[in-house]
Amino acid sequence: MNQQIILKERPVGVPDKSTWELIETPISDPGEGEILVEQYYISLDPAMRGWLNDAKSYIPPVGIGEVMRSGSAGKVIKSNNPKFKEGDYVYGWGGVQQYSVSDGASFYKVDPSLVSLTVYTGTLGMPGMTAYFGILEVGKIKKGDIVLVSGAAGAVGSVVGQIAKIKGCTVIGIAGGPEKCKYLIDELGFDGAIDYKNESIRDRIKELCPKGIDVYFDNVGGDILDHALAALRMHARVVICGAISQYNNKKAVKGPSNYLSLLVNRATMQGMVVMDYAKDYGKAGMEMGMWMAQGKLKSREDVYEGIENFYDTFLRLFSGQKMGKLILKIGSEQ
Amino acid sequence: MNQQIILKERPVGVPDKSTWELIETPISDPGEGEILVEQYYISLDPAMRGWLNDAKSYIPPVGIGEVMRSGSAGKVIKSNNPKFKEGDYVYGWGGVQQYSVSDGASFYKVDPSLVSLTVYTGTLGMPGMTAYFGILEVGKIKKGDIVLVSGAAGAVGSVVGQIAKIKGCTVIGIAGGPEKCKYLIDELGFDGAIDYKNESIRDRIKELCPKGIDVYFDNVGGDILDHALAALRMHARVVICGAISQYNNKKAVKGPSNYLSLLVNRATMQGMVVMDYAKDYGKAGMEMGMWMAQGKLKSREDVYEGIENFYDTFLRLFSGQKMGKLILKIGSEQ
Repeated sequence: MNQQIILKERPVGVPDKSTWELIETPISDPGEGEILVEQYYISLDPAMRGWLNDAKSYIPPVGIGEVMRSGSAGKVIKSNNPKFKEGDYVYGWGGVQQYSVSDGASFYKVDPSLVSLTVYTGTLGMPGMTAYFGILEVGKIKKGDIVLVSGAAGAVGSVVGQIAKIKGCTVIGIAGGPEKCKYLIDELGFDGAIDYKNESIRDRIKELCPKGIDVYFDNVGGDILDHALAALRMHARVVICGAISQYNNKKAVKGPSNYLSLLVNRATMQGMVVMDYAKDYGKAGMEMGMWMAQGKLKSREDVYEGIENFYDTFLRLFSGQKMGKLILKIGSEQ
Repeated sequence: MNQQIILKERPVGVPDKSTWELIETPISDPGEGEILVEQYYISLDPAMRGWLNDAKSYIPPVGIGEVMRSGSAGKVIKSNNPKFKEGDYVYGWGGVQQYSVSDGASFYKVDPSLVSLTVYTGTLGMPGMTAYFGILEVGKIKKGDIVLVSGAAGAVGSVVGQIAKIKGCTVIGIAGGPEKCKYLIDELGFDGAIDYKNESIRDRIKELCPKGIDVYFDNVGGDILDHALAALRMHARVVICGAISQYNNKKAVKGPSNYLSLLVNRATMQGMVVMDYAKDYGKAGMEMGMWMAQGKLKSREDVYEGIENFYDTFLRLFSGQKMGKLILKIGSEQ
């Protein structure tokens, strides 16, 4: 049988127990040109919250009764598609279920002898690609820039900061709690860290970035975005990657009151969606893989177990009770 | 004697009668290298409200006791500067006073036989330059773009819309009241107009821009900015030129709740300050002058009289009781 998490009703505010349902269906046989993937790891990402809303966005919402959309890594166990063979390891969009059948278009092959499968859902998957293209193509960092990143201990933010360090920037991260801040500095080599749960963000930005910020990479929105805007330097770039503080709002999103800092500082605020860069994923993957091999880019995954724990694990995205890339392990090789 | 408007105290919210004071001082003699300008026209611009605040911005605030900063047009009546001679007409930063003495660095010569002096404070002055560089360099319009502009009947907005029409765009303007809307369509050739005082901005944007907006040029901020953000097309550009709806706020500026539309639509919001383009004013002036001569670019000035009426006239910027460029006439040739 195939255990699946399906969307049962659209949440208002924080998802609750009635948002999803765990069901069992027979494992489908792959048809002509299709593959059957046994899935081991499910990628849990803030963007998934957005896909629950019945609103126009960059992709359609997940439909009621449909398997919850997610990234996933696993192994092809049956193939009627000449591009895949049994035993191939793959990463793609399999959804939160133990087995997925597809035409293979949304999966690509990965090699777990180079890095573990979990890394393909994180640093070498969508979060890593988001970081890579966001900080390089949208943030347009150059040597000597002062870079501030929020959600800095997360799957995207941790890679953003490390790439900025590789490129010769001064990097300050914002994260929740002393453990994460210590991790940013001691493990990832950030120049400074701000604990937004225990410190004055405004004062600490002034202290750590006395000249202001050239690039702000925003994963969180809300008050932190406003504090960053207040500290922009001339011609600064603000990368809008996400706004996790606002995703469970029941009221309107908090708009950035300090947006006129864009005018005063001739600055730019630009949104991004990683899928636009799909044709360059290969180049980015190769470069990031090499940085990993050289020890310049570290990947950390926080893996919880059991498809029945999907709901509780998902909420860790919003409580911050996780470190690095959040992953749900739902199976393993025999 | 020289009648001058000086800043008496910094306003909180809408400036009131005690914000400025009209004083008389003896007319200064120009020193070595200096010129004495008799000023006929004072440019009244929304940016002047910002210069009253004691806050870090793109230029220092006007000091208490100082002559109120403004653009001005007049005639050189004494010159100890080889670059100017008596009788030269000039436009520059003379402030709200009948006579100004300066080293001439902030004045340039203009020719009232080509267009009237008032045009040099409007369409061929700072507002026109702001429109030109804002819509072309920041908005990056191209033929076929759908352009929305707020404050469309104002000094900047009216030029933005006309330039966009010249460049082959579809142009919708937002203005207050049926008279202004009629002016946009009948006189300036806009494709559509939205009367924000009497119509639903949201519904009318949907009606007039069913495919959405490629470029939004914002002079007003507030709710109108949010409505525009909600209608962005992919890769849209939002030009932040001003936020007149927010300048007299006693509370925090209203941030745009719909800023995540930048993410969904991979759009850019960028601020601008016209002074950055100073080296290209000549080129822009020539091009706009030619458009005026060809009848493609129309200029409208709304001229009120008397330096003693500075306060009441200034408030028209915020009440909207004016059409086109707001000017105060404070003198005339004998």
